[in-house]
Amino acid sequence: MTSETSETSASNLTPSLDPARITPAPEHKFTFGLWTVGWQGRDPFGDATRAPLDPVESVQRLAELGAYGVTFHDDDLIPFGSTDAERDAHVKRFRQALETTGLTTPMLTTNLFTHPVFKDGAFTANDRDVRRFALRKTIRNIDLAAELGAETYVAWGGREGAESGAAKDVRVALDRMKEAFDLLGEYVIEQGYDLRFAVEPKPNEPRGDILLPTVGHALAFINSLERPDIVGVNPEVGHEQMAGLNFPHGIAQALWHGKLFHLDLNGQTGIKYDQDLRFGAGDLRSAFWLVDLLETAGYQGPRHFDFKPPRTEDYAGVWASAAGCMRNYLILKERAAAFRADPEVQEALRASRLDELALTTRGEGESLSEGLAALLADRSAYEDFDANAAGERGMAFEHLDQLAMDHLLGAR
Amino acid sequence: MTSETSETSASNLTPSLDPARITPAPEHKFTFGLWTVGWQGRDPFGDATRAPLDPVESVQRLAELGAYGVTFHDDDLIPFGSTDAERDAHVKRFRQALETTGLTTPMLTTNLFTHPVFKDGAFTANDRDVRRFALRKTIRNIDLAAELGAETYVAWGGREGAESGAAKDVRVALDRMKEAFDLLGEYVIEQGYDLRFAVEPKPNEPRGDILLPTVGHALAFINSLERPDIVGVNPEVGHEQMAGLNFPHGIAQALWHGKLFHLDLNGQTGIKYDQDLRFGAGDLRSAFWLVDLLETAGYQGPRHFDFKPPRTEDYAGVWASAAGCMRNYLILKERAAAFRADPEVQEALRASRLDELALTTRGEGESLSEGLAALLADRSAYEDFDANAAGERGMAFEHLDQLAMDHLLGAR
Amino acid sequence: MTSETSETSASNLTPSLDPARITPAPEHKFTFGLWTVGWQGRDPFGDATRAPLDPVESVQRLAELGAYGVTFHDDDLIPFGSTDAERDAHVKRFRQALETTGLTTPMLTTNLFTHPVFKDGAFTANDRDVRRFALRKTIRNIDLAAELGAETYVAWGGREGAESGAAKDVRVALDRMKEAFDLLGEYVIEQGYDLRFAVEPKPNEPRGDILLPTVGHALAFINSLERPDIVGVNPEVGHEQMAGLNFPHGIAQALWHGKLFHLDLNGQTGIKYDQDLRFGAGDLRSAFWLVDLLETAGYQGPRHFDFKPPRTEDYAGVWASAAGCMRNYLILKERAAAFRADPEVQEALRASRLDELALTTRGEGESLSEGLAALLADRSAYEDFDANAAGERGMAFEHLDQLAMDHLLGAR
Amino acid sequence: MTSETSETSASNLTPSLDPARITPAPEHKFTFGLWTVGWQGRDPFGDATRAPLDPVESVQRLAELGAYGVTFHDDDLIPFGSTDAERDAHVKRFRQALETTGLTTPMLTTNLFTHPVFKDGAFTANDRDVRRFALRKTIRNIDLAAELGAETYVAWGGREGAESGAAKDVRVALDRMKEAFDLLGEYVIEQGYDLRFAVEPKPNEPRGDILLPTVGHALAFINSLERPDIVGVNPEVGHEQMAGLNFPHGIAQALWHGKLFHLDLNGQTGIKYDQDLRFGAGDLRSAFWLVDLLETAGYQGPRHFDFKPPRTEDYAGVWASAAGCMRNYLILKERAAAFRADPEVQEALRASRLDELALTTRGEGESLSEGLAALLADRSAYEDFDANAAGERGMAFEHLDQLAMDHLLGAR
Repeated sequence: MTSETSETSASNLTPSLDPARITPAPEHKFTFGLWTVGWQGRDPFGDATRAPLDPVESVQRLAELGAYGVTFHDDDLIPFGSTDAERDAHVKRFRQALETTGLTTPMLTTNLFTHPVFKDGAFTANDRDVRRFALRKTIRNIDLAAELGAETYVAWGGREGAESGAAKDVRVALDRMKEAFDLLGEYVIEQGYDLRFAVEPKPNEPRGDILLPTVGHALAFINSLERPDIVGVNPEVGHEQMAGLNFPHGIAQALWHGKLFHLDLNGQTGIKYDQDLRFGAGDLRSAFWLVDLLETAGYQGPRHFDFKPPRTEDYAGVWASAAGCMRNYLILKERAAAFRADPEVQEALRASRLDELALTTRGEGESLSEGLAALLADRSAYEDFDANAAGERGMAFEHLDQLAMDHLLGAR
Repeated sequence: MTSETSETSASNLTPSLDPARITPAPEHKFTFGLWTVGWQGRDPFGDATRAPLDPVESVQRLAELGAYGVTFHDDDLIPFGSTDAERDAHVKRFRQALETTGLTTPMLTTNLFTHPVFKDGAFTANDRDVRRFALRKTIRNIDLAAELGAETYVAWGGREGAESGAAKDVRVALDRMKEAFDLLGEYVIEQGYDLRFAVEPKPNEPRGDILLPTVGHALAFINSLERPDIVGVNPEVGHEQMAGLNFPHGIAQALWHGKLFHLDLNGQTGIKYDQDLRFGAGDLRSAFWLVDLLETAGYQGPRHFDFKPPRTEDYAGVWASAAGCMRNYLILKERAAAFRADPEVQEALRASRLDELALTTRGEGESLSEGLAALLADRSAYEDFDANAAGERGMAFEHLDQLAMDHLLGAR
Repeated sequence: MTSETSETSASNLTPSLDPARITPAPEHKFTFGLWTVGWQGRDPFGDATRAPLDPVESVQRLAELGAYGVTFHDDDLIPFGSTDAERDAHVKRFRQALETTGLTTPMLTTNLFTHPVFKDGAFTANDRDVRRFALRKTIRNIDLAAELGAETYVAWGGREGAESGAAKDVRVALDRMKEAFDLLGEYVIEQGYDLRFAVEPKPNEPRGDILLPTVGHALAFINSLERPDIVGVNPEVGHEQMAGLNFPHGIAQALWHGKLFHLDLNGQTGIKYDQDLRFGAGDLRSAFWLVDLLETAGYQGPRHFDFKPPRTEDYAGVWASAAGCMRNYLILKERAAAFRADPEVQEALRASRLDELALTTRGEGESLSEGLAALLADRSAYEDFDANAAGERGMAFEHLDQLAMDHLLGAR
Repeated sequence: MTSETSETSASNLTPSLDPARITPAPEHKFTFGLWTVGWQGRDPFGDATRAPLDPVESVQRLAELGAYGVTFHDDDLIPFGSTDAERDAHVKRFRQALETTGLTTPMLTTNLFTHPVFKDGAFTANDRDVRRFALRKTIRNIDLAAELGAETYVAWGGREGAESGAAKDVRVALDRMKEAFDLLGEYVIEQGYDLRFAVEPKPNEPRGDILLPTVGHALAFINSLERPDIVGVNPEVGHEQMAGLNFPHGIAQALWHGKLFHLDLNGQTGIKYDQDLRFGAGDLRSAFWLVDLLETAGYQGPRHFDFKPPRTEDYAGVWASAAGCMRNYLILKERAAAFRADPEVQEALRASRLDELALTTRGEGESLSEGLAALLADRSAYEDFDANAAGERGMAFEHLDQLAMDHLLGAR
């Protein structure tokens, strides 16, 4: 009966939505954190609703769904406090599953937040021994990342922050944060690992305020490091939206700086607790523009889902949710491509003078000095400029945006 | 060339999107405020970008676009301080335009916020003479509302509030608010007008905090009036979303109380200043569920757009924006109807036990007392209830929500 | 050395801050939830940082700190799944501690959110058996509440909500919510318990959206119950602030409706995850106005702290945090009293025409009909009213608010 | 009578609040924008409530109140469209007022948002001629800034943004933004002006989303300029708080990067429209930590107030509001100084291990390579580290924060 229904659905697809094109496959580079499908549903007000999930099963199921890879925190695979022998056994089983399925591990990261020892942070904990432990724990997993061929090592400083004003001297804490990344950079370089770091910003939760709260703050910080070239950002949809920021705008700025090393796709319904909904849920229009940007900007990295299947779901729901992430990405990709290919859209973009934004403000090919001189001498730019007339020109953005809406809704 | 493009578009529509069904017509009961298309673009940081718009032209253009009616504040039609003769002339011209076009005026309201006299509010201004003036100004326009056959009189208390704690004794202010509605109710009853009031909540802007900030607060307040039967609410999409609230949930509660007398459709991208984007822009998923609710709940009132075409637009953009409001409503209506009609959706709703939510918690037909006794005697409800087993049941919400997403995106 | 420092501090107090007046004592009616000081620090990203706390120890420590009472969810005292014998033993030990210390239990409540069985809510769970179990679990603890002499039974519907649009038919869910409160009201009346219910609103977390999200929505809902007289609200500082709402305004409206049956004091730094900071932390100016309102409005109920000592703290920090809640309340109480007693403030209130707000808008003693007739006949109210002149009158709110600031800061 | 009241107040001051120390004087470097006290109260929903204010009168009144300087947009002093002769006359009168009063003009800025021509932005407007006009308008006022001896030129890009996704290609717009700052930097260098730029971030309003939305984004952007050395940031309290960010944290990061060239002090009550309340209003605890940071970090720039006296006020209220800004700063400065000087606070800071945060994580004086080697060899850092024991250490932040609260409230 399900298959019959599916057939009917297929026949309802718009011409542009070829089922083959919205079926996930490894070339789409979809990756999932082990902690996402493996989240047991423990939240601030409730106990786990799902039994633990074997990482090997996650690998198998994700492969069946069409994923390209998996990612993980050290503790997701190797429980905190494991002996070396236990560690080896966990890694061995996991590698076998990767080999069997063909899944990759393009990104690894460190859990520096679950254990009580990290309650005041890790790289910026007031306690120096905690900071040193955090670095060693990270380094240990960096070795595994290199061993597994990961390209990116994500650093989320979820507990680097404070709830009260005197508890953290932020300037001093940034010194410590810089020191940590400088030491880790030194390690990677000394080891000759082909691995880059990606800093993941978040404004708050679980701390009242977190250091490097947005993509912007992280980008600025990176410029102060000893080796800024091997450090970029790992923006997460929901994290920026928790600050009410426009996610595609943040991604665009990260791309502009050449620093979009990785990203976390999920959904969030506005400024509230961190929801980690499946991709597409939450702000759908923003998701459309995000996919449009990633696809047109030539972003080559994984499309990494960092979501939490709601704790209302059993494992059938978990896999439905994971499949939904990929399906929504692919549908949006089709919709965005159709939007860009539409001649009426192209005309509307010109009517809104997007082509003119692409022209330099000074004359083409002029140096700054030449351009400045020409500008100062150009009476049409100021003395003879009719500001009132120019102010009456409509920008035609509403027509353009409605065309986008039509494409998003499959109504063109 | 435009017509060619349109033809192409039409052929791309999904089978379920019959162009005839997404073309606005009076039976859809779309209405617009004169102040919406007539907004000149003055904002806190900028001057007007558009010339004034003659209300008669608005009527004509909206009629051409397929609207059902127009609404207005007194001052939108009759400038503040007009003489009686001027007033009559404005009304006469306007009525002629209504007659010519067939447009209706189902709602009127009062401008109690633009003139400096209302800087501390109107019905709850600290100054008693301002309160009395506000009531008389309202009454005068209520007469016009009755004369024009309006069914609803909206009251937005945009400046009933404060920026600082001692400036307003809220309990006393609520006494004054109640007194105002009681006097207005008395007036309408005494005059025999067939007119109901709709209170429009808003959390803030232009005051730091506004009284009756949400649909809930307004519903509660109404219960304290002398004539609660003739007072309901006029919720606005963006206003509730400025408090991060789920708009369809608020509408559902208003419907549940029998108090959805009118509503304001527009768009808002989260918690920030009041944006008044065209309907569909902003939270598109929420707009889908809103239309689904209005259409399935049998809401019979106007679909009233209270939006502001962005000040980047000239009048071509204004009309494109107005047309977009209606188009988006109709597309969403089609998508929601297809969702509800889809057998797989119906199966998914059962899998999520929506049918069980519809059963009374006590036994069918039992009185409270009977139901309570039976419940207390039912060992299966407590002593023998296997909470752990029940806690393992998945709710299957993710599958259901993905079906909704598929319908919204035209992907089924 | 600490004692020396304290002496110095004491000598620095302003004359109005008599140390005796800011020392907590039972007459201040400060109460704490067992779950507050007993919170072990488990959050969405981290494990517990504190060992379990024996409820008996909580009672003893809170008594030493000057508290008046303790409150609890059933499961705080009696672990979920306890046998009757275990239950009796827990209650017996606890009652002994109450008797020894003299602490009261003015409020009890039910845990309907921790166990997986409540993952889709309790009174509005889609599953009927879950709803019935939730009612029985509540009733069982209502018996204990009556036995312990509690006056108020709080109902927080933390999981009555949804993350996606089709998962919950809100109108039907409100039917179930009403049914639940009607059955519980019936039970309390039939048993002859002297117990009132207090509904605790919250906009979101742990669900994406929660039903009855604000004080206003709860007040409106209560009016639809069979026995609205025995149901009021239990507003929580942080919950309203998570929607960006002005908490004192919400409390004022609850008082105006005669429905402030209980309240939860804590701190929150704006719209984000539920922080449950100690009272005073977060929005301090709002806390000042809240205390001013509670004290001047004659609120007689407990001052109940529902906070979470940050997980960075050990138990010394927990008790420091609890003590801080009470200390801050008492300091603010002194500051607010000094503000109200200050002749310059009283003059400033008149300059801002708060006295005029207290006058009825119609003539004193007039009926609605009389008042309306007089208003319509009063040319000074409209025809002869000089709106421009009235609009030039300053409200003098900034001076008034600065006086409040001075008092808050101890600078007058 | 006022003087009597003041005497009484004075006697109530705590010993540490010496009236002389909370009386504004030029050495405090308080500055005000002409547009702040001169704001006429026009808002999105209302007309001006105050008559225009002569800039010369502003200078005189601010001088009387103890200010150090005034700042302005070109159009604040010289109405848009003035002839050269009119311009000269305005400047001449203004300079005379400055000379008479001794007030300085440490900062100037450009109005690139009021006139309709800037409706799509200025430096990133899609229209190239608008971009060129904006640069010339800016350059003209830079000349005046240099002439008046200003040290800082602020650039707020209030309309550099969009309401819809396709309307602005953000990467291209950042190219244009960079080009604009590069041209302006070139101009300043070529002219030999001793003037630095300060970019003012804001997340939204009046555009749906604004480019460079936070301090972080602006800091990152500056690093990409040709002359990053002469460009810093001008953070505004309310702008960062509109994104829910911790303002002192943002200021700390700006200081850490050496980029706090200027700042805008005001008040905001959370995530909502831009309120521009007087300094101290809004989040008072955050204001305390901000003043603590500025004073202890040795910030030497002006304390610039960018606020809007509420439109409820007449000019008496305007000046009361301006005076309140300075008074609150000075009270908080005293409170923060007392906090830092308190021996019990110093002990509490050590108990919270702030001293340990100040130690490098690697060994003192070690190079990165040396430190890394030592860390890897240090078994106590990992193999022998007792994470569980370390996780039990309390951070004692609640005690520390309560001491801060006591100082803020004048209760120590």
